[in-house]
Amino acid sequence: MRVLITGGAGFVGARLARALLARGMLAGRRIERIVLADQAAAAPWLLADARVEARVGTLLAQIERLAGEPLDAVFHLASAVSGECELDFDLGLRSNLDSTRALLDALRRRVQQHGAAPVRLVFASSIAVFGPDPAYPFPDLVGDDTLPTPQTSYGTHKLVCEQLVADYTRKGFVDGRAARLVTVTVRPGRPNGAASSFFSGIIREPLAGQRASLPVDPGVAHPVASVGRMVDGLIAVGEASRAAFVGRTAMTLPGLNVTVQQMLDALERVAGPAVRARVVRERDERIAAIVANWPRAVTTPRAAALGLRCDASFDDIIRSYIADCRDPVLGDPAALKGMA
Amino acid sequence: MRVLITGGAGFVGARLARALLARGMLAGRRIERIVLADQAAAAPWLLADARVEARVGTLLAQIERLAGEPLDAVFHLASAVSGECELDFDLGLRSNLDSTRALLDALRRRVQQHGAAPVRLVFASSIAVFGPDPAYPFPDLVGDDTLPTPQTSYGTHKLVCEQLVADYTRKGFVDGRAARLVTVTVRPGRPNGAASSFFSGIIREPLAGQRASLPVDPGVAHPVASVGRMVDGLIAVGEASRAAFVGRTAMTLPGLNVTVQQMLDALERVAGPAVRARVVRERDERIAAIVANWPRAVTTPRAAALGLRCDASFDDIIRSYIADCRDPVLGDPAALKGMA
Repeated sequence: MRVLITGGAGFVGARLARALLARGMLAGRRIERIVLADQAAAAPWLLADARVEARVGTLLAQIERLAGEPLDAVFHLASAVSGECELDFDLGLRSNLDSTRALLDALRRRVQQHGAAPVRLVFASSIAVFGPDPAYPFPDLVGDDTLPTPQTSYGTHKLVCEQLVADYTRKGFVDGRAARLVTVTVRPGRPNGAASSFFSGIIREPLAGQRASLPVDPGVAHPVASVGRMVDGLIAVGEASRAAFVGRTAMTLPGLNVTVQQMLDALERVAGPAVRARVVRERDERIAAIVANWPRAVTTPRAAALGLRCDASFDDIIRSYIADCRDPVLGDPAALKGMA
Repeated sequence: MRVLITGGAGFVGARLARALLARGMLAGRRIERIVLADQAAAAPWLLADARVEARVGTLLAQIERLAGEPLDAVFHLASAVSGECELDFDLGLRSNLDSTRALLDALRRRVQQHGAAPVRLVFASSIAVFGPDPAYPFPDLVGDDTLPTPQTSYGTHKLVCEQLVADYTRKGFVDGRAARLVTVTVRPGRPNGAASSFFSGIIREPLAGQRASLPVDPGVAHPVASVGRMVDGLIAVGEASRAAFVGRTAMTLPGLNVTVQQMLDALERVAGPAVRARVVRERDERIAAIVANWPRAVTTPRAAALGLRCDASFDDIIRSYIADCRDPVLGDPAALKGMA
């Protein structure tokens, strides 16, 4: 089968591609080709696999070609991130709304005009669909039945696309499923200016021997997951039967509900007090106010019914990041130079 | 002030225009002009008012001109209806999604490019946003905090546009509010093929001396309202302060929660047993199955806080329809020729 990953050169997309290549199969069929569509170039270690083909350019510009080729499954991860959408409203509309609509219509044309079978489509949504509306404050545990009242353009676009995927699915134009990702940590690389950036930064920077700023109170709670668990979730959602997915409402992937204090305690256990001591409390009112609008914890019974579990502990999340950094192919040993 | 009503020649739009003309004011300002944008021509009795101007054509084709003119408030009612959207997917996307997006972007350009104040925008949504997802069955009373999982393209588009209106409002591009209409009854005219058509037909046809088919069990319950109450609701939502509206989540307008049996009993009380006897039970499995997917009752505390109430009884709803038919200007006496 042929699989398209939009955003396939990104942090989650590249790891999804690696996992699919390692499995070799999806939903009982052999994977012959994985097309990575992305604005950025894919990593050499991905392109080294003969099954991988990369297409560089905006998704909107690529859709017609992609839709005209044989295609069995799509993981639609490409997205402008939250902060970008707040700064540039048109970019958000174009990258998140118009691109998804164009993708859906291209996939629909395959069915309506060429009699193709509906493509299996996994849409990567986000718990950013949840935001506290003054009329409807959050429950303690945010579930898939919680009313989404997004408070960002990013969250709005994710919710809108979830609804479009569900309706195109109802009509038989695609076989779509939306999976809401929780905050992925530890992201490698540099701080990216997103309000959620510190959830990775307070682990990543100390491990690299650098000082990290903690902009919120240690009591702040939030659901997080390793990228591995999110990749497992995307694949499981893509492999699920329609009956097992239950309905067409978006499914939140499991997150580990932790406080920042618990994250710091785990860092001390895994990497020692000297590493932990590099995290400095420097309250940032702007970031604290944004984070106060996020879910403090999720409950994910539907994902559990698919066999999906959150990471067992934040210690495990840190350890899997460390293992990734030590990976001989995609690792970055310098990212751990702060460890004793 | 200048007011635009999209769908202004339609059943609700024309009555909204009449109500606004009679009030002469909206949100404390005098109404100088009401522009009715519609694919159909407006009724002569509306055009007789010097403040009224009609524009005939699709909304998409009109938006640029409308957006370039002075404009203070918009009631956005134009929509392809549920049955049309199920038959013609592209029509639904164009009429309900693309038109609303184009309208929002035109209103945004007024603010971003010309420094205009955000236009007050009332978006007519619908309780069609609610549908029973297998994972999330309806509560007994559907409220504004009930998870919308639309089961039609129409309901999907309404929910998507609610979200876009909320986000454009959050950004200050419009001052938008979405109001969900319940099923309006008694609609004048002919049956329109919509699954909900019988909610009007079982009253309208007997009053006109014709036989009416009842396709569902008399125990079926559904929230309904007279067009007058819905018009009152749209105006109240348009006049509310942001604080009084509370948040940006769509607000359901009050509906009278009735069973079909209660509707028929009211018909007998208001018009007599001979009129009631013209309703014949002829179960239609297709319609019964569709209606089984609709909310059986609504609860509307936010609308109540704006002073809005549902019709006092279904007797009142029938009486207001009869009064409308007898109206010397817009009435149709033949519609009552079945009454003794």
